[in-house]
Amino acid sequence: MPTISQRGEIMPASPIRKLVPLANAAKKRGITVYHLNIGQPDLPTPEIGLEAARHIDRTTLEYSPSEGIYSFRKKLTKYYNRFNIRVSVDDIIITTGGSEAVLFAFMACLDPGDEIIVPEPAYANYMAFAISAGAIIKTLPSSIDEGFALPSFEKFEELITPRTKGILICNPNNPTGYLYSQKEMNQIRDIVKKHDLFLFSDEVYREFCYTGAAYISAFHLAGIEDHVVLIDSVSKRYSECGIRIGALITKNEELKKNIMKFCQARLSPPLIGQIVAEASIDAPADYMAETYNEYVERRKFLIDGINRIPGCYSPIPMGAFYTMAKLPVDDADKFCAWCLEHFEYEGQTVFMAPGSGFYTTPGLGINEVRMAYVLKKEDLGKALIVLQKALEAYPGRTI
Amino acid sequence: MPTISQRGEIMPASPIRKLVPLANAAKKRGITVYHLNIGQPDLPTPEIGLEAARHIDRTTLEYSPSEGIYSFRKKLTKYYNRFNIRVSVDDIIITTGGSEAVLFAFMACLDPGDEIIVPEPAYANYMAFAISAGAIIKTLPSSIDEGFALPSFEKFEELITPRTKGILICNPNNPTGYLYSQKEMNQIRDIVKKHDLFLFSDEVYREFCYTGAAYISAFHLAGIEDHVVLIDSVSKRYSECGIRIGALITKNEELKKNIMKFCQARLSPPLIGQIVAEASIDAPADYMAETYNEYVERRKFLIDGINRIPGCYSPIPMGAFYTMAKLPVDDADKFCAWCLEHFEYEGQTVFMAPGSGFYTTPGLGINEVRMAYVLKKEDLGKALIVLQKALEAYPGRTI
Repeated sequence: MPTISQRGEIMPASPIRKLVPLANAAKKRGITVYHLNIGQPDLPTPEIGLEAARHIDRTTLEYSPSEGIYSFRKKLTKYYNRFNIRVSVDDIIITTGGSEAVLFAFMACLDPGDEIIVPEPAYANYMAFAISAGAIIKTLPSSIDEGFALPSFEKFEELITPRTKGILICNPNNPTGYLYSQKEMNQIRDIVKKHDLFLFSDEVYREFCYTGAAYISAFHLAGIEDHVVLIDSVSKRYSECGIRIGALITKNEELKKNIMKFCQARLSPPLIGQIVAEASIDAPADYMAETYNEYVERRKFLIDGINRIPGCYSPIPMGAFYTMAKLPVDDADKFCAWCLEHFEYEGQTVFMAPGSGFYTTPGLGINEVRMAYVLKKEDLGKALIVLQKALEAYPGRTI
Repeated sequence: MPTISQRGEIMPASPIRKLVPLANAAKKRGITVYHLNIGQPDLPTPEIGLEAARHIDRTTLEYSPSEGIYSFRKKLTKYYNRFNIRVSVDDIIITTGGSEAVLFAFMACLDPGDEIIVPEPAYANYMAFAISAGAIIKTLPSSIDEGFALPSFEKFEELITPRTKGILICNPNNPTGYLYSQKEMNQIRDIVKKHDLFLFSDEVYREFCYTGAAYISAFHLAGIEDHVVLIDSVSKRYSECGIRIGALITKNEELKKNIMKFCQARLSPPLIGQIVAEASIDAPADYMAETYNEYVERRKFLIDGINRIPGCYSPIPMGAFYTMAKLPVDDADKFCAWCLEHFEYEGQTVFMAPGSGFYTTPGLGINEVRMAYVLKKEDLGKALIVLQKALEAYPGRTI
């Protein structure tokens, strides 16, 4: 038998994925499982987006252009304008989800052995895309005790080598909900400039900033316009993850040409998804406000609830719809598995994402979990009760 | 400015892409351009597929499972059964177009520096996916004078090195329309077995076999079941390229697990596309027969027409909807550009794909073009007249 690739072997299997069979088994036993583990919004897709799919008037579902449909890209320029992000139609390349935008950014910027620096905890799939590109992610720990603030300039510089090609940030952040301040973004700008790096900036949660603090896009930073590769997606803002529509935005002409080669090789992003996404931009203000308000309420409810459970702590996330919380357990991997395998409270249990999956530095996140507030408040309330009861019963409790 | 990746720089820009601006300029001058250059069917998508999109009854367009929707995969097993391809639901992984299936197959099977052997002329984008994976494609020329028959066992063996990990075939073939015989497929099986290789088999044109000769799937070959990675797509058979739905099929459990890691990293294939594709499998027999008969007629019409033009020659393609034809010109790259830039006949011209884009061996295909019969007969007729007139006027004519 021919052997599979090493690249495939080193590709990490997410700790969430390992727990899925346990969750399925729990459901088979008749247990209600509250999914705090995934970033799949439960809120409705804008009706105007769904209607666009329902009124497809084409007889042939043809390839769209490799860079995406012009009218959609044009409309996106206006959307970005609202956030003071000034980009032209030609700067926007539509991708198959934000995932493909990350993959193509890495493929086009990084050669095998090249390095990028990523503050951790971080979205686990960045690692998979880096491995696909043969690139190396060097993580820079941020800590729950400092609310996941950006590590210092010096800490970044300690990781820089001749192979360092870029920095990747996610802002607002998945998994922490952290929102970088102007000062922190200026620091990133200075490092990018000083060391001539790419800045990969994943900003798919920009709609969801809760504290009144400004959302600073990488494109707001003066003097590094050609270094910025903005990663975007409509998945989260319009609760339409399934259509697989994202975007990669760059003003760097050379890079753009390069990325287009990868786009042309895969022919085109999904046609119907683009039609739905284009229409979704016109979702009424009410829709956006309701979505926003719903997350604001859930956030307060969840974070208050966590912080009331003895021994638990969550910083207050400023954006996105996640929080990283510290639990009084020996090992969150074990605890999350135990909740699904050995625990129930009144026929219910919780599925949380073990923190270890968001760190690459060994030992970090060992007593942390990521919780997503993509459940309605009533269910979040039940999940909190279950969590409290689980912590009371868990044999590996530390406090 | 940070430098882009070498991988991006060596990624070939297709000669078709270079001609697109010329075609657009011709259109701006008011010239009708007959597109023989692309594999975008003009025929309608099955009504039952379109209706499925129009009746989306979901309120949230959620992620689908990373491996694709179960009911769709289940229905595909029955579809494959019709072609005597015996696969289980678990053997089928839904991908974002056949493109992603090729990319993931390469990523999961090949490490940087690994080699695969591909008979040429070949679909140009295989090269792009190989470069993405850091792998090396070694092409093995087949010739128009031998009707693009499979090169001999010995020719394959000449290319085999310790780094050879697989053979890639496309059957029925894009760009030649060739269909491999049982004898040729047995030869491939023997090489795969002898040298312990993967067999990547792109079979997206299986519906379109015209000569009564049997379509032999890689899965029909006994004794190499675990070596086969079948690449599939619904794009061509249901004229729905835009939905980006393909499949990767393997019975190799270790490989399956590996590929699933790449699938999980990109979360899921397009949801609405899967719904359309699943419904399209139930397209009535009439639909499939009409599509088939239309291609049969066009094929005869186009090939007869080409072979009637003095100095032109096309073998009779046995499948797919392309042919590679030889033209009496010094350089088909120049000729194709010249048709768009400097020629018109009664306000019309033709856009053909230069043969050089389908070969990597320098000099091969220099007087060949790929023509796709994805235009209605009336337009094919006009395109043939234009081609004849263009050849009469072209300064670089050789015969």
